[in-house]
Amino acid sequence: MKATIISVGTELLFGQTTDTNSVYLSRQLQLLGIDVMYHHTVGDNAARFRRILELSYDDCDLVVTTGGLGPTQDDLTKETVAEALGDALAPDPASLASIEAFFARIGREMTDNNRKQALLPSKADIFPNREGTAPGFALETGGRAAVCLPGPPREMTAMFERSARPWLAGRAEGIIYHRTLRTFGIGESALEAALEDLISAQTDPTLATYAKEGECSLRIASKRADAAEAQRAVAEMQGAVMDRIGRYVYSDSDEELAQVVAGRLIERGLSISSAESCTGGMFAAALTDIPGISAVFDRGIVAYSDRAKTEELGVPRETIERHGAVSRETALAMARGLKALTGSRVAVSVTGIAGPEGATDEKPVGLAHMACVFDDRERCEEIRTRNVSRVWNRRYAVLHMLSMLLREISD
Amino acid sequence: MKATIISVGTELLFGQTTDTNSVYLSRQLQLLGIDVMYHHTVGDNAARFRRILELSYDDCDLVVTTGGLGPTQDDLTKETVAEALGDALAPDPASLASIEAFFARIGREMTDNNRKQALLPSKADIFPNREGTAPGFALETGGRAAVCLPGPPREMTAMFERSARPWLAGRAEGIIYHRTLRTFGIGESALEAALEDLISAQTDPTLATYAKEGECSLRIASKRADAAEAQRAVAEMQGAVMDRIGRYVYSDSDEELAQVVAGRLIERGLSISSAESCTGGMFAAALTDIPGISAVFDRGIVAYSDRAKTEELGVPRETIERHGAVSRETALAMARGLKALTGSRVAVSVTGIAGPEGATDEKPVGLAHMACVFDDRERCEEIRTRNVSRVWNRRYAVLHMLSMLLREISD
Repeated sequence: MKATIISVGTELLFGQTTDTNSVYLSRQLQLLGIDVMYHHTVGDNAARFRRILELSYDDCDLVVTTGGLGPTQDDLTKETVAEALGDALAPDPASLASIEAFFARIGREMTDNNRKQALLPSKADIFPNREGTAPGFALETGGRAAVCLPGPPREMTAMFERSARPWLAGRAEGIIYHRTLRTFGIGESALEAALEDLISAQTDPTLATYAKEGECSLRIASKRADAAEAQRAVAEMQGAVMDRIGRYVYSDSDEELAQVVAGRLIERGLSISSAESCTGGMFAAALTDIPGISAVFDRGIVAYSDRAKTEELGVPRETIERHGAVSRETALAMARGLKALTGSRVAVSVTGIAGPEGATDEKPVGLAHMACVFDDRERCEEIRTRNVSRVWNRRYAVLHMLSMLLREISD
Repeated sequence: MKATIISVGTELLFGQTTDTNSVYLSRQLQLLGIDVMYHHTVGDNAARFRRILELSYDDCDLVVTTGGLGPTQDDLTKETVAEALGDALAPDPASLASIEAFFARIGREMTDNNRKQALLPSKADIFPNREGTAPGFALETGGRAAVCLPGPPREMTAMFERSARPWLAGRAEGIIYHRTLRTFGIGESALEAALEDLISAQTDPTLATYAKEGECSLRIASKRADAAEAQRAVAEMQGAVMDRIGRYVYSDSDEELAQVVAGRLIERGLSISSAESCTGGMFAAALTDIPGISAVFDRGIVAYSDRAKTEELGVPRETIERHGAVSRETALAMARGLKALTGSRVAVSVTGIAGPEGATDEKPVGLAHMACVFDDRERCEEIRTRNVSRVWNRRYAVLHMLSMLLREISD
């Protein structure tokens, strides 16, 4: 099955909104074994939309649209798609009832143009919208299929998962099973080099690497006639991959590093506190992003000034004077001081030069020292990024802290 | 001038990469007075790329492409565009020399396929690539214009700014001048309602609102024959807008709220510390994201547990017991304690329920209390979000803290 994704909406052409829907749908369709040939974005213009639709059905048997299902004059998706597939709009009583119920629930008055949202192609399978008012639908006539979803990402993804995916799964050939291994501490080219023969010999399962902001993922996917077979093929390849680069892999289910670390801390009931300088609270923010972390996270100290390092964490003035605020010694003193202060079983710290200012000849932008004290075990690490930007340096330091922490608490 | 943007690259159709280039280019073209009619994404396939090119020139006189300029077999942009515009590829000596110099500089050996990158359409204006190896170009024949840029965003934006923008500016009709006002504390529909007559009467300058994660921007744009005239028209409209909603506007140059707050703190030399509970360090992280903030930011305390609130900030146990950790009283005690501890002129605090757990009947998810002590002036505020998600609740609380802070230090 070959598909085209069409995003409808003039606002997308102004460059004020990034089209994340196409990215999501590409990934989801691929997992269903559907090949995506094009993404198109058109404004709210029926003639141009019609041309793109016709072009799409030259190559593809499926078109997935997002947007243009709303109540206003601009919203033309239903009419245009129904026409291209030889259908016409008719009122759908169930959709009308649920739009009425939605307005009753939020206590706002329903306008006439909201009623228009219950007009749908007469031969379509209707997809209810529990997150908003505009229903979606799937329509198939004469070898042309269309799946039409709302534009707001939250409504779109919910409707895809609940209604569109099952509809499509019933039509797709084969089943794709995949796993995403997430790594830290190895670059994309080193990862590829380590797996070169596996990647180039690939037919099924396929292996692909993806670099993303300091991390690198590896996707293993297999498309087979049945799920168990695909799963077995992926598991076998995963074993071969883990033998080579297993020490860099922190998740085989596409979790964020912070999520894995928080999960492990909660599971082991390890209390934790953090002391940050250059990252300015980003480590604490990343960890506290995970629901349930309050069971173990006690506190974080953002000791930005030297005075704060001394007053809050008891870092001796002489340590800072002799070795500098960005040093192994200061990082260790921060973690030790934090541990004494809080009694947390794990205390982590970081101090570094995020840039663009603050560098010296020996201490370049991108240098950071980290320490972890876990019960009576101490560990210090140092990183030197290639100074891409302040944002990157701070983010990479947080990832490295999380990675160090994970190694410490995983033994 | 009407334009189509085409992104070339199979990897974009897999959904592993978000196409930020189209967003950037849409905005830039619009500022040049060029209307963007379509975005298309195609894989590395000459036949499909050719079809999209032909379709584009039916409506548009300009096509801007990104990607497909690299050294591999897959990279087909130059050949395909040259063919569509009746030109052919020829070696460009200057490009070859600069590719050779690039490899010499990074100390890697240059392969034969890198030489291919110096083959360019014979009638094109060549755009050098200082961030990478693949040059770009602009080509115009028989009423069809094409601007071809590399795919990596850093290379693309640098080349656009240095070469493509001046090339296009020479061809565009009129000059667009615009200003983006950023607001906080007013929703998009309320903003529209307040400006309804101005928006619906608009021809030039145009007025458009954009909602984005808790904030709302307003873009005023004018397209005139000369820059001074456009600027005057925008300034006049800005005056009319400010009369109505000025109190919500925190920037008229599209700056982030954190940037504006940090700028004001640095300018006034006001030392600041923060105490956070529910936001877990995000406020400190947002502020320390701004270069130069170390001149005023002393420290941040992430007092996540009740114990930390008492130990670090001296919040009396009874305050927490009587009013709860999420209360006006606790927020105020946190800010007061922080001020006493640090001596910072400004102390801000927040405590709230980020969710999904932790709510009670009186204290729903999304509730947060904030306090600010600036010298001897104290202020408390409360927000209740509509509990969209933990991420949203935390982010909104940070924005509100920044907004409260800005009001306090702006008098």
